[in-house]
Amino acid sequence: MNYSIIRYILGWIFNFQAFAMLFPGIVAIIYGENEVWDFILCIILCGIIGFVLTLKKPKNRVFFAREGFVAVALSWIILSITGALPFIISGCIPNFVDAVFETVSGFTTTGSSILSDVEILPYSVLFWRSFTHWLGGMGVLVFLLMILPMNGGYQMFLMKAESPGPSVSKLVPKIRTTAMILYGIYMAMTIVQIILLLIGDMPLFDALCTTFGSAGTGGFGIKNDSMGSYSPYIQVVTGVFMMLFGVNFNVYFLFLMKRPIQALKCEEARWYIGIIAASTVAITVFITNIYGSVGTALRHAFFQVSSIITTTGYATTDFDLWPEVPRVILVMLMFVGACAGSTGGGIKVSRLIILVKSVGKELKQIIHPKNVRKIQLDGKVVEHETVRSVNVFMVAYFLIFAFSVLLISIDNTDLVTNFTAVAATFNNIGPGLGMVGPTGNFGIFSDFSTLVLTIDMLAGRLEIFPLLILFMRDTWKKF
Amino acid sequence: MNYSIIRYILGWIFNFQAFAMLFPGIVAIIYGENEVWDFILCIILCGIIGFVLTLKKPKNRVFFAREGFVAVALSWIILSITGALPFIISGCIPNFVDAVFETVSGFTTTGSSILSDVEILPYSVLFWRSFTHWLGGMGVLVFLLMILPMNGGYQMFLMKAESPGPSVSKLVPKIRTTAMILYGIYMAMTIVQIILLLIGDMPLFDALCTTFGSAGTGGFGIKNDSMGSYSPYIQVVTGVFMMLFGVNFNVYFLFLMKRPIQALKCEEARWYIGIIAASTVAITVFITNIYGSVGTALRHAFFQVSSIITTTGYATTDFDLWPEVPRVILVMLMFVGACAGSTGGGIKVSRLIILVKSVGKELKQIIHPKNVRKIQLDGKVVEHETVRSVNVFMVAYFLIFAFSVLLISIDNTDLVTNFTAVAATFNNIGPGLGMVGPTGNFGIFSDFSTLVLTIDMLAGRLEIFPLLILFMRDTWKKF
Repeated sequence: MNYSIIRYILGWIFNFQAFAMLFPGIVAIIYGENEVWDFILCIILCGIIGFVLTLKKPKNRVFFAREGFVAVALSWIILSITGALPFIISGCIPNFVDAVFETVSGFTTTGSSILSDVEILPYSVLFWRSFTHWLGGMGVLVFLLMILPMNGGYQMFLMKAESPGPSVSKLVPKIRTTAMILYGIYMAMTIVQIILLLIGDMPLFDALCTTFGSAGTGGFGIKNDSMGSYSPYIQVVTGVFMMLFGVNFNVYFLFLMKRPIQALKCEEARWYIGIIAASTVAITVFITNIYGSVGTALRHAFFQVSSIITTTGYATTDFDLWPEVPRVILVMLMFVGACAGSTGGGIKVSRLIILVKSVGKELKQIIHPKNVRKIQLDGKVVEHETVRSVNVFMVAYFLIFAFSVLLISIDNTDLVTNFTAVAATFNNIGPGLGMVGPTGNFGIFSDFSTLVLTIDMLAGRLEIFPLLILFMRDTWKKF
Repeated sequence: MNYSIIRYILGWIFNFQAFAMLFPGIVAIIYGENEVWDFILCIILCGIIGFVLTLKKPKNRVFFAREGFVAVALSWIILSITGALPFIISGCIPNFVDAVFETVSGFTTTGSSILSDVEILPYSVLFWRSFTHWLGGMGVLVFLLMILPMNGGYQMFLMKAESPGPSVSKLVPKIRTTAMILYGIYMAMTIVQIILLLIGDMPLFDALCTTFGSAGTGGFGIKNDSMGSYSPYIQVVTGVFMMLFGVNFNVYFLFLMKRPIQALKCEEARWYIGIIAASTVAITVFITNIYGSVGTALRHAFFQVSSIITTTGYATTDFDLWPEVPRVILVMLMFVGACAGSTGGGIKVSRLIILVKSVGKELKQIIHPKNVRKIQLDGKVVEHETVRSVNVFMVAYFLIFAFSVLLISIDNTDLVTNFTAVAATFNNIGPGLGMVGPTGNFGIFSDFSTLVLTIDMLAGRLEIFPLLILFMRDTWKKF
């Protein structure tokens, strides 16, 4: 393990956090809130630690996958703890475990909340809560790659460890440029959504926070009924943008490069849109009689499907009251998740495509044992390496899932609540069903369960392996 | 596809069924029940069809994995439909779909029942119901391999397609001898259990049916409260034998060969016993206050753990009323299942061992990229082929699982019922939780859902691929 380079990267994480907190600080000044001092305190604290840790540049340049995973895992843990400070100091969430849960829920773009009433929070704290979604969505290390004076092979290892999906493709040969393009697209889409929401007469503050929540596919609302009280126009705009932020960003890059045909051929995006369309239609059929008109049912169905598959978690209605078929479809979508290379969570559509194709391949192999063909995606052969890591990911995924359900069942809450609470946090969605449904919250859990779910959120966002690596003894050996 | 050999094998399945029905026929004669005529009718019907189909020996000897899978899948479908005839003709289960469900539940050793009152059934029908467990447990094709005048490489393909677990090992070079040894051990253990139950003052008829249910890890009870009203001695004997029938039969073979050290080293059996012990202790802790004494709690805990992990499904108490932790442990055990090469169902312990080891291997590979070691089981390298097929199995498993839950949710029963109903049938267990808990039954479902669950039972027993192969167009092509 190359400790000095880890120290250096973590120092920059503190600097990043100090910089990020400037924004809620400004909001506090605008609204004349006392919380401005809390944010100033946190900024100074993070700034000093960051300054000290980055004083000395690392000499040792050895950097491999191991260092990448460890750096990313520790970075996110630091983001979680320092990010919780404003909640604790301001007294909005006095319990440490709860405050960390809420912060991790923000950065991992989960959107599960332990708060039963968010409307009493100061604007600056609400802003910070939603802003963490935006920061966590595209990734913090990816942001640092853009600005840090780092070079050499290790950028790729950092990017790989933080970016979601079975394989990371550099858009352009230079990682730094790739990071800039990704953030450029992200920023541009964010601005477009804000403008469209403002056109729909949404207040600026609401438009900002709602957009942060959909861009990062996070889902923290600033109203107690999430998106339920906004106009149908605002709901539709948000629904569409959630869907767009769940698309593989490669697709947008190809459009930018004026290669629309290649962009439209992206298998993952096509399956993703197909799943959304099929689920929306199916749910609409089952809920039309509840809402009286096909139009309203369609709007709620599309919004909820888009919200759950992208793992955002906004709600326009209490879908926990829907019949079983729509509920089961939503639970299934919780696991599917968005595209790789998007801001969404879950298992990811491309993983599922690879897995489904591997079943088809196995069946063909039984029938024609001598005629073995490799799995293809977008016309390219999927490397054996990738297939294997997808399989291992799924195994680790289900093991952690089952173990988490067992641990939180100690609270003796019902099975649907436990199961969907883990599904909602591990897949970075937000609300589940039962006691953690759209009208419930995660305040019902004991500190122990809250901690388990916090780890699940981090494991889900970082796709498991970076966190597991921390617990391997070999990781911490010197060379 | 070699149609003539498939025709020949299926003919023998009809003969087998005719032979098997002699036994309940004898029971009907002993108890002077009118159902004897129903059984005679079925025997004649199956006998004639079997006779016609086996008249002409197949000339074409081409036989590959494809033929093995198709033969096994079709054999089990025929067993299910012909086996349902006595239920329908006797009027015990007049609905065709329900009767097939009950029969499939028997042969697949599931033990889920659509009947709310089994105590009103005639003895011969009860006997047939339990006897199907015993027949299905070790496998019908395995039985035929023992007696059929077949030779050549295709025996292995038949055995592979019907036997549970990631890989089949021949105990001795000749398949026929292997089948005989397996049935020999099976028969001997069955007789020992019957004797021990008789010593506990159990009536002979009860001892036979209970033993059939535990030997096949089936779980059809002949009392409405399953095993609840029997003495603690009988419950303990049954609990221990369920556990023993869930052990990989290789272990017993090694003991027979006087190689006890090798037998005791079997990794799968050790994990299996370890999981049972840990689960029993954990559950006992949580239910001691319900039963007043540690002893009673331990007995119920062990019985239920043994019953669920072996996918038998007997119950001594209503475990649906237990707290959440024991309930979640039981649900997890539903998926674990018994050892490969036993009569139990589920995912199988050896598959889980391979999967867990593959996660460990991946983590080590991240830390030491150049130091790749293969997964080992019982000191032997697990072939890449096996690891891949385990992974593909898991994918197909979860896809079918999710799709089944979706389909039966059309009945609008609650999520816990739907989820555990699929878990209980797909893993060949029997009871689930909620409306299909130990005191409920599967009669609550519509014909459509009953059919879905019937297919799940078959898919679970045959480990998915034989059934899927039936739906591939290439399967039915001539050479």
